[in-house]
Amino acid sequence: MVKILVVHGPNLNLLGTREKEIYGELTLGQINQEIKKLAGQLNAEVKIAQSNHEGEMVEIIQQSADWADALVVNPGAYTHTSIALRDAVSGIGIPTVEVHLSNIYKREEFRHKSYIAEVCEGQISGFGINSYLLGLRAAVEIAGKGQSKQ
Amino acid sequence: MVKILVVHGPNLNLLGTREKEIYGELTLGQINQEIKKLAGQLNAEVKIAQSNHEGEMVEIIQQSADWADALVVNPGAYTHTSIALRDAVSGIGIPTVEVHLSNIYKREEFRHKSYIAEVCEGQISGFGINSYLLGLRAAVEIAGKGQSKQ
Amino acid sequence: MVKILVVHGPNLNLLGTREKEIYGELTLGQINQEIKKLAGQLNAEVKIAQSNHEGEMVEIIQQSADWADALVVNPGAYTHTSIALRDAVSGIGIPTVEVHLSNIYKREEFRHKSYIAEVCEGQISGFGINSYLLGLRAAVEIAGKGQSKQ
Amino acid sequence: MVKILVVHGPNLNLLGTREKEIYGELTLGQINQEIKKLAGQLNAEVKIAQSNHEGEMVEIIQQSADWADALVVNPGAYTHTSIALRDAVSGIGIPTVEVHLSNIYKREEFRHKSYIAEVCEGQISGFGINSYLLGLRAAVEIAGKGQSKQ
Amino acid sequence: MVKILVVHGPNLNLLGTREKEIYGELTLGQINQEIKKLAGQLNAEVKIAQSNHEGEMVEIIQQSADWADALVVNPGAYTHTSIALRDAVSGIGIPTVEVHLSNIYKREEFRHKSYIAEVCEGQISGFGINSYLLGLRAAVEIAGKGQSKQ
Amino acid sequence: MVKILVVHGPNLNLLGTREKEIYGELTLGQINQEIKKLAGQLNAEVKIAQSNHEGEMVEIIQQSADWADALVVNPGAYTHTSIALRDAVSGIGIPTVEVHLSNIYKREEFRHKSYIAEVCEGQISGFGINSYLLGLRAAVEIAGKGQSKQ
Amino acid sequence: MVKILVVHGPNLNLLGTREKEIYGELTLGQINQEIKKLAGQLNAEVKIAQSNHEGEMVEIIQQSADWADALVVNPGAYTHTSIALRDAVSGIGIPTVEVHLSNIYKREEFRHKSYIAEVCEGQISGFGINSYLLGLRAAVEIAGKGQSKQ
Amino acid sequence: MVKILVVHGPNLNLLGTREKEIYGELTLGQINQEIKKLAGQLNAEVKIAQSNHEGEMVEIIQQSADWADALVVNPGAYTHTSIALRDAVSGIGIPTVEVHLSNIYKREEFRHKSYIAEVCEGQISGFGINSYLLGLRAAVEIAGKGQSKQ
Amino acid sequence: MVKILVVHGPNLNLLGTREKEIYGELTLGQINQEIKKLAGQLNAEVKIAQSNHEGEMVEIIQQSADWADALVVNPGAYTHTSIALRDAVSGIGIPTVEVHLSNIYKREEFRHKSYIAEVCEGQISGFGINSYLLGLRAAVEIAGKGQSKQ
Amino acid sequence: MVKILVVHGPNLNLLGTREKEIYGELTLGQINQEIKKLAGQLNAEVKIAQSNHEGEMVEIIQQSADWADALVVNPGAYTHTSIALRDAVSGIGIPTVEVHLSNIYKREEFRHKSYIAEVCEGQISGFGINSYLLGLRAAVEIAGKGQSKQ
Amino acid sequence: MVKILVVHGPNLNLLGTREKEIYGELTLGQINQEIKKLAGQLNAEVKIAQSNHEGEMVEIIQQSADWADALVVNPGAYTHTSIALRDAVSGIGIPTVEVHLSNIYKREEFRHKSYIAEVCEGQISGFGINSYLLGLRAAVEIAGKGQSKQ
Amino acid sequence: MVKILVVHGPNLNLLGTREKEIYGELTLGQINQEIKKLAGQLNAEVKIAQSNHEGEMVEIIQQSADWADALVVNPGAYTHTSIALRDAVSGIGIPTVEVHLSNIYKREEFRHKSYIAEVCEGQISGFGINSYLLGLRAAVEIAGKGQSKQ
Repeated sequence: MVKILVVHGPNLNLLGTREKEIYGELTLGQINQEIKKLAGQLNAEVKIAQSNHEGEMVEIIQQSADWADALVVNPGAYTHTSIALRDAVSGIGIPTVEVHLSNIYKREEFRHKSYIAEVCEGQISGFGINSYLLGLRAAVEIAGKGQSKQ
Repeated sequence: MVKILVVHGPNLNLLGTREKEIYGELTLGQINQEIKKLAGQLNAEVKIAQSNHEGEMVEIIQQSADWADALVVNPGAYTHTSIALRDAVSGIGIPTVEVHLSNIYKREEFRHKSYIAEVCEGQISGFGINSYLLGLRAAVEIAGKGQSKQ
Repeated sequence: MVKILVVHGPNLNLLGTREKEIYGELTLGQINQEIKKLAGQLNAEVKIAQSNHEGEMVEIIQQSADWADALVVNPGAYTHTSIALRDAVSGIGIPTVEVHLSNIYKREEFRHKSYIAEVCEGQISGFGINSYLLGLRAAVEIAGKGQSKQ
Repeated sequence: MVKILVVHGPNLNLLGTREKEIYGELTLGQINQEIKKLAGQLNAEVKIAQSNHEGEMVEIIQQSADWADALVVNPGAYTHTSIALRDAVSGIGIPTVEVHLSNIYKREEFRHKSYIAEVCEGQISGFGINSYLLGLRAAVEIAGKGQSKQ
Repeated sequence: MVKILVVHGPNLNLLGTREKEIYGELTLGQINQEIKKLAGQLNAEVKIAQSNHEGEMVEIIQQSADWADALVVNPGAYTHTSIALRDAVSGIGIPTVEVHLSNIYKREEFRHKSYIAEVCEGQISGFGINSYLLGLRAAVEIAGKGQSKQ
Repeated sequence: MVKILVVHGPNLNLLGTREKEIYGELTLGQINQEIKKLAGQLNAEVKIAQSNHEGEMVEIIQQSADWADALVVNPGAYTHTSIALRDAVSGIGIPTVEVHLSNIYKREEFRHKSYIAEVCEGQISGFGINSYLLGLRAAVEIAGKGQSKQ
Repeated sequence: MVKILVVHGPNLNLLGTREKEIYGELTLGQINQEIKKLAGQLNAEVKIAQSNHEGEMVEIIQQSADWADALVVNPGAYTHTSIALRDAVSGIGIPTVEVHLSNIYKREEFRHKSYIAEVCEGQISGFGINSYLLGLRAAVEIAGKGQSKQ
Repeated sequence: MVKILVVHGPNLNLLGTREKEIYGELTLGQINQEIKKLAGQLNAEVKIAQSNHEGEMVEIIQQSADWADALVVNPGAYTHTSIALRDAVSGIGIPTVEVHLSNIYKREEFRHKSYIAEVCEGQISGFGINSYLLGLRAAVEIAGKGQSKQ
Repeated sequence: MVKILVVHGPNLNLLGTREKEIYGELTLGQINQEIKKLAGQLNAEVKIAQSNHEGEMVEIIQQSADWADALVVNPGAYTHTSIALRDAVSGIGIPTVEVHLSNIYKREEFRHKSYIAEVCEGQISGFGINSYLLGLRAAVEIAGKGQSKQ
Repeated sequence: MVKILVVHGPNLNLLGTREKEIYGELTLGQINQEIKKLAGQLNAEVKIAQSNHEGEMVEIIQQSADWADALVVNPGAYTHTSIALRDAVSGIGIPTVEVHLSNIYKREEFRHKSYIAEVCEGQISGFGINSYLLGLRAAVEIAGKGQSKQ
Repeated sequence: MVKILVVHGPNLNLLGTREKEIYGELTLGQINQEIKKLAGQLNAEVKIAQSNHEGEMVEIIQQSADWADALVVNPGAYTHTSIALRDAVSGIGIPTVEVHLSNIYKREEFRHKSYIAEVCEGQISGFGINSYLLGLRAAVEIAGKGQSKQ
Repeated sequence: MVKILVVHGPNLNLLGTREKEIYGELTLGQINQEIKKLAGQLNAEVKIAQSNHEGEMVEIIQQSADWADALVVNPGAYTHTSIALRDAVSGIGIPTVEVHLSNIYKREEFRHKSYIAEVCEGQISGFGINSYLLGLRAAVEIAGKGQSKQ
């Protein structure tokens, strides 16, 4: 059974309570429910974490190194500013899927650059909760192969 | 039954025959088989086209306007240079999912910019054939809702 | 009687059927009617062509070299990306008027740059169908003088 | 009867007396004659002003707010440097046509940027005196519709 | 009685003890005293917080969402690097006033860009402790109107 | 009794009559009334001037050198283009407060750069008429200290 | 006997008939004669193609994969804009020599960038028809070694 | 006897009264005395003007066209922002010498660019009053030759 | 006896366990041993801290202000993004030596910029554990002089 | 008999002894042998020089002015930094062919810019020793025509 | 009697023999004659040197440190590329006047930047031999004051 | 016994005699004494050279190829402009340590870029003479290992 860590970045704890026109109606709890449900169907074990702290995200990722077969990360605003996160992903060497609820390429110019993308397997952006679900599928597939394909 | 048009851009007809270290072992025919198989499972109707010509891609997209509920497009090299393609996607107003076999953010700087992304629902990049399959799932979902969620 | 070639670029065949808030209600057929009507008033002969293909536009322009006294070209999306078109216009050496339905300077940054403008007599942008009609007047005038004034 | 204000910017009072290879042989007086003649044919009333002062041009534009149905402005060198002029055009909210005698896209790089273009209906550049006459036609048409089409 | 949250960012706990030539002689405690005194005069209730942690600042702001009518934030160094903070401010949708002790436009180039400014009501920069006091006045006024004016 | 010169830049004479959605409902006359009222409360003497001319603004500022203890300047569009204004402010050496009705950091990119800011005490932007009133308070405070704190 | 494909890009069919001051007096037919003559001397077999269409050039190159030992390509205007062409050259993995009639580094800035150069063996620019002949020599030499030396 | 117009730009009327550490102790009156004295020695006739207004400087330059053999211009802050001034200098076609009291290349980056320099004979920068005197010598020499040496 | 604080930034706790081809075989514990050993030889007292949190690093540095004579800091990924760290170093005013295990100028472009370098005594980059040891020597020397030499 | 000067730039004396994977196995002596052999076949007289000094290269080129009919120059690293070399080539006015052993467009970004290219007849890059031999052919051809064709 | 060193940079030994349309008819010898003649009139002692070598120019300047009261330097092409020259001028601390025969601001963009200008007293550009003579006057004047005025 | 070549670049022969506030009081002779003393302690043999000539530095480095085990180079101003030096270092393939007396990151922007750094083991900057001594230690250590660790 493959093991997947899902990490939500800063401000995602506000989901479904604020700026619904951008991020949709679902709360983070509801999203996590859907992730778990699909994980069950895909016969995967998931752990889910959220943090507003860059350093804490680094440590959550570091600590997954001995457990997880793959990661699904929505780094939120840290996507565009955090080299520390990038180094953590790159450092643990576990295949990682970057996901975004909104299409970051339709938003402000500064959201088009991802420091994380270059060290991930791939990126999924713009499908709301489906970004997570598609990302989970991708992660399970990659983990199932027992190796990153890049 | 939702109707999905899948469009492959330039040089993708070479798949599985050249530069396998970047694009993988599968031929375009094999990829199309997988797409059709999944479409069957998702109860979707697919049409698939490939072209090396920018203008032809524009016309394939234009002509899908009265048939398709959603598009899955891998614009290949035209991703980074074609405003005409962007205008075609934007012009027909049908929800579109942009997919890439390789993670374009791990490649040359000039492949990081997509003219198409800003007029698509979302983008999936880096998962090999899985990019198409995940893209098809996303497209079917969006088409099923009968409306773009933008 | 001066002879004028009018060339419409990519996606302009969609006019009046899509994105009317940007490009207006008129179809390309209706626009062509108006062009022909004014040409008659100005005692000019017009030929009109449309293409979604960069290479085809290049050849339409090349082939006008022995017939046309002036060109009116709306290069659409190729305005911003096609050096081949520029070279065709420059290569035949016939005075050319660049026209745009919408004001390209009110749109995305990447639409502000025209590769064609530098080899045309002048540019008219933002007046809807009137851009063509004013462009036709300008072309007829220049052609009538038997020489480019630049 | 529509009312059109025509404003000439800095150094245009030199027309026909200096740098004729760029701006042509006609004096500003002769150009104004042609503008008035065409206005008569189009059944429009025109007022014409010239100023070398940015602030004065701002005020000429401000003061036209209660009289003019449309403006034709050749901002000359202020095209490329004056945000005050832009704010004046934008502030009065009257449809404005930007015109240039020479093709500004064939000249120095710093003449390719227009601060005015983004708040005008459209731009006409490169046809010598004809730029004014085509601009007047455009302005009369727009004014006649009683509303900006943007 | 309007409720205002005042948030001090990183290194502001050093105020009055270090680099006095830039930030002045007052300690953070003394500044907070002045803020409270003025709040009393303006009939406003204030809460004040300081943090050196980006994530903690995000959470302080998030947690004010149900209490505060307006925010006064001096994001310190995070002004120029934190999109997470911007998203927090934007996410809670409460009118926010950005303040800086020093005139950030007189300092290094990298301090001229504020990610926060674009989601705040306004910005006050350069008046020492007075930046806070003027910011508090602005916040009280805006909160009193019961709505952001942007 | 401190003496404050308030200078309004180009197009601000249109306030309250045009583009109210950006600049608000108040006329310049009403704003000046409020400024004078607050000046009375703060026991300050104010002179107020408006000009659409860059050179005239330079001279108004120069001529205040022997009278004013501080300046409050809203340079309008000249904020972003006038080095002459900057040199005038810097040349007279009197503490100056830069104010803007709207939050210039929420507007076009070219409005984010202020040539004036680097020679002012500080900047207040985005609070409508309150920008002037807060600016007046700041100016009175600085003038009262008999010296710029920078 | 080595086999060499020579490909001419857009507008090169105009050679010798237009803009002779840039491209010289020779027609494409005459150039092809010289190429064939030299090929004979070098004991090489050549095929020659010309196209104004980016997509067609892509396909000509793709189709040479099983026949040619080396390519000589003058991509014309597509040199500077076509990633599709680059991908085709890179995709077939056959050593390629890029040639230009004129010295592209003496022309407009936008002609200094070649997307093709980075995937070719080398580049020859500026020697008129001699660019082709030298390129043919280089191609024959490389093909003769049976392998690209990069 | 050659005739030279000397034009001083904005804020130069403050010379010797403000910012003496940058511009020196001499007043504009004293500088003009020295200019006239040297003109006498060089057997030249000089007229001298100062203006803080861009438009006025344009007109002073325009009006010199029929009188002056050469110009000496210190455009002050307009050096870096005024295309109108450039067009005036270029328009009258009289050889012009650009002078600056301070070395503009030791000052802020934005003072390194001169729009005027490209249409002047030459530039002299950094020698205090001597910049004018050397500039006068240069102007007299050029005017004496009866032609610009470009 | 001089007192030196050594601070390790984010992800350095992974040393010797991951990405050994970049950072070498030694664990952070082993590096700390070597640092302490050398400190003993140099008759210096060292404290050593590691943190993955930007805010925590800021506070570790702040809290060293009353104890340390000099700092040795390897800010890791925060080197390139943290102005808060820079402000902390600059704020406490204690001489600081920046060190990096790898040569940051051989790595990605974004690792070439250090916000910290400009407020440090100097920088040592590329010598593996030796970077720390050389940095310690430099710090002890500077601290021994009782003053920064910059 | 045409006379050709061949100049090798800095570090080319190391050829065949160092970095053979980039520059190949041949020593400079062997390359010179091949150049002389071909020169004999082409009935040309060659002189060959190498220098590591920019100034010396300038003088070698200057001194060839009265002897050489054409130059073949491999400016090595000075290609990208030396305007003095460019001025020497441009100054003597003798047709010059720029050659490079490696394809400079496949190497670091800073090697893509050539200051020399703009004043040469043409450029040949990427063919190892063949770059020299092709360059010699080109030079002999141009020299034989007795005039540069540019 | 003040002592002035005049240094001519690379390729200036070609003066009067090549590219006369840019640099004029005079040889370096004739220019040096004029410099000496004026020096006599100004009661100054001059030494004159020319070098094509950057390092040699550095040493000529270094060696003047104990003799010269001021320098007049025409750094030629090294103006735009040599920091070593700048450091030499700055290192000896003797007032220096930068001169150029041609107006460098009318030439290629890369000639607009001078590394030397920022460490010189001032710059004189565009007056042919007069640039040297005016530069000599400036140098003598500054040297006569016994101190740099900057 | 390891053998180390120490190379000082341009203007470093002025050390201790000029601009002491930047480079300190020590002469190059004194620095060399200290280097030799430490070399003795570290049981290393050193040769030391200084040159103001880029080409000469290239040759000094080339000639060390058969003798030195490691290099310590302070390239001075050539750090920022010399690709030839970089190619020499890279060409000989001997581990090299780049040192700078001053912290180049605290100085002008153009001193932040090192062409050398990317081909060196590491860089030490900002510790005065200590930069050399620490560099020597690093070089000896690397040389002792008999191999570069990168």
